[in-house]
Amino acid sequence: MPRTAAASSLARLGEFGLIRRLRAKFGRTGPSVIRGIGDDTAIIRPAPGRWWLLTTDLLAEGIHFATDTATYEDIGYRAAVANLSDIAAMGGVPHYLLASIAIPSGRSAADIDRLYRGLMRACRRHRVDLVGGDTSASRHGLLVSIALIGSVEPGRALTRDAARAGDAIYVTGTLGDALAGLALLSAQRTRGPGSRTLSAPHRRFLMARHLRPTPRLLAGRLLAMRRVATAAIDLSDGLSGDLAHICEQSDVGAEIEAAALPLSPACRAYAASRRMDPSRLALTGGEDYELLFTVPPRHEATLRRLSGKAGCRFTRIGHIRSKAFGQRLRRPDGTLQRLAVTSYRHFERPASTH
Amino acid sequence: MPRTAAASSLARLGEFGLIRRLRAKFGRTGPSVIRGIGDDTAIIRPAPGRWWLLTTDLLAEGIHFATDTATYEDIGYRAAVANLSDIAAMGGVPHYLLASIAIPSGRSAADIDRLYRGLMRACRRHRVDLVGGDTSASRHGLLVSIALIGSVEPGRALTRDAARAGDAIYVTGTLGDALAGLALLSAQRTRGPGSRTLSAPHRRFLMARHLRPTPRLLAGRLLAMRRVATAAIDLSDGLSGDLAHICEQSDVGAEIEAAALPLSPACRAYAASRRMDPSRLALTGGEDYELLFTVPPRHEATLRRLSGKAGCRFTRIGHIRSKAFGQRLRRPDGTLQRLAVTSYRHFERPASTH
Repeated sequence: MPRTAAASSLARLGEFGLIRRLRAKFGRTGPSVIRGIGDDTAIIRPAPGRWWLLTTDLLAEGIHFATDTATYEDIGYRAAVANLSDIAAMGGVPHYLLASIAIPSGRSAADIDRLYRGLMRACRRHRVDLVGGDTSASRHGLLVSIALIGSVEPGRALTRDAARAGDAIYVTGTLGDALAGLALLSAQRTRGPGSRTLSAPHRRFLMARHLRPTPRLLAGRLLAMRRVATAAIDLSDGLSGDLAHICEQSDVGAEIEAAALPLSPACRAYAASRRMDPSRLALTGGEDYELLFTVPPRHEATLRRLSGKAGCRFTRIGHIRSKAFGQRLRRPDGTLQRLAVTSYRHFERPASTH
Repeated sequence: MPRTAAASSLARLGEFGLIRRLRAKFGRTGPSVIRGIGDDTAIIRPAPGRWWLLTTDLLAEGIHFATDTATYEDIGYRAAVANLSDIAAMGGVPHYLLASIAIPSGRSAADIDRLYRGLMRACRRHRVDLVGGDTSASRHGLLVSIALIGSVEPGRALTRDAARAGDAIYVTGTLGDALAGLALLSAQRTRGPGSRTLSAPHRRFLMARHLRPTPRLLAGRLLAMRRVATAAIDLSDGLSGDLAHICEQSDVGAEIEAAALPLSPACRAYAASRRMDPSRLALTGGEDYELLFTVPPRHEATLRRLSGKAGCRFTRIGHIRSKAFGQRLRRPDGTLQRLAVTSYRHFERPASTH
């Protein structure tokens, strides 16, 4: 059996054989890396005069991914994007990656290669170097923990606390796709109620949006360097929850227009096939990895001029209001309702998504 | 039941409540931290003109720790030390910590507090700031993944590849204690063959060496700043395995004198009670977190003068030889034997330890 043979090869390789192999395959680094994988720590000669950005994200099997709906390459790719997207939301440039994995028995060296291949596919595009990590056995599921170090020009970082009443609220790209894609992948696995009326291209698009999201690094850089945005956050938990972070930390409220939420044709078709309101997917769905940001009205004309360079569209979806206003959704019929946080949260009963 | 009540409080807190709580309790930071926990990334204003050191270590339940032999505070403490020790082995100064945890159901908010309390107890001593992290549910065991960022003066890092034939090999502290302590803790749990003849102070000492190891940061700094050491590594996997890394990366061999290995009275007493050779504990035992380093003969006098300032003793245990010599152990009777790597390795059958 090829799988058993491959699995036993991980035992033959051993921990240090695996590290040597990963270093040889994925450890090529740029000139600022004095020492990459293979010593007690990596050694970096940083570019002078910049601020560092430090972030980390952990993906656990059965929580963030399942190997029957995602390939190992997908898992690695998404783990990288979760971190790259955090740097994008600060307007920064990503540089150095540390990747730790806990590997349960029965996984092969080839599986781990694929995971790193996905990880580095997402990273190389942005010249991010893999400079270290840790490998461990795991009694149970696979676990991937990434730390990413980036940088930004002093004073230019896009934080969550700088939104002001009157700012327009924008998002990049389209929302809800990743959640629809996840629902399709899960239905495929459980043979549950899929969306048989959905065209194959729409299905593929939505699944790819879940499995291979795009970190909006170029957009984040433009917003920070042109001083267009006040606050920014990446949509990893879902619009309703991530907007709540901006409101809490900026001490403001927000009004979102349901009719303005940018939806892909595939997401609309998926919602129609399931007889659901697509704006609910857009408000709830996590892991779109689009950016949500706030723009003072005087900078909106500049923003429009940037949209051709960012690699994605910018859509105004509402405005920052006073804290007393709270967070509300304007329905297409003009009425206002409280914008409940329906995003996924760990340790709580997950919000119903469909 | 208090435990159930506490566990349910983690569900009530939720992911973001937990993060707020951890930030309030453990997120106090120094002046170089522009933004700590709570944004998309941490923002750091680094000291100019230094090299960065990046390291990460992952601890998995059932592999690196068990909650019936270690408290949550111990688990956090050891997770911090595993990383601090890597910075020590480079001769650097630790600065910023990112801590990610995957938490299975049934653990309480108080358990997680204790884990972070242990983590920060190890860190605060060295003025390390907790600046970020990630929290996730886990389907199975508890997992702690730490990334630590430190710095060192350019050109002063102690790497693994700079040992030269003729250098003396030194270690800090005593060896084998942590392995003896782990064996005692495991025996306590399984009611296996403990060492009933061992005195209570010896038992406590050995268990504490496993549960609360000391990162040799001061020793590492002295070795790097006084330019005394050529190469260094921390003893996380066991002397035989970690020495092999130095030999491989420096392209040299090594001769270790069994009679010179520094052993604590407690470790000697433990070995006597189990009728085993204590040098075997010293060669095999991982997680002592002592430093192994190499010193050219002309610097040995300087090293002796430093020993009073390092907070631990330095013991010469052998010499670097040519690569052709291999890695050998000189027995007390004067004969030489091949120094087999008996350290623990992931994905392989663990070496027998007793």
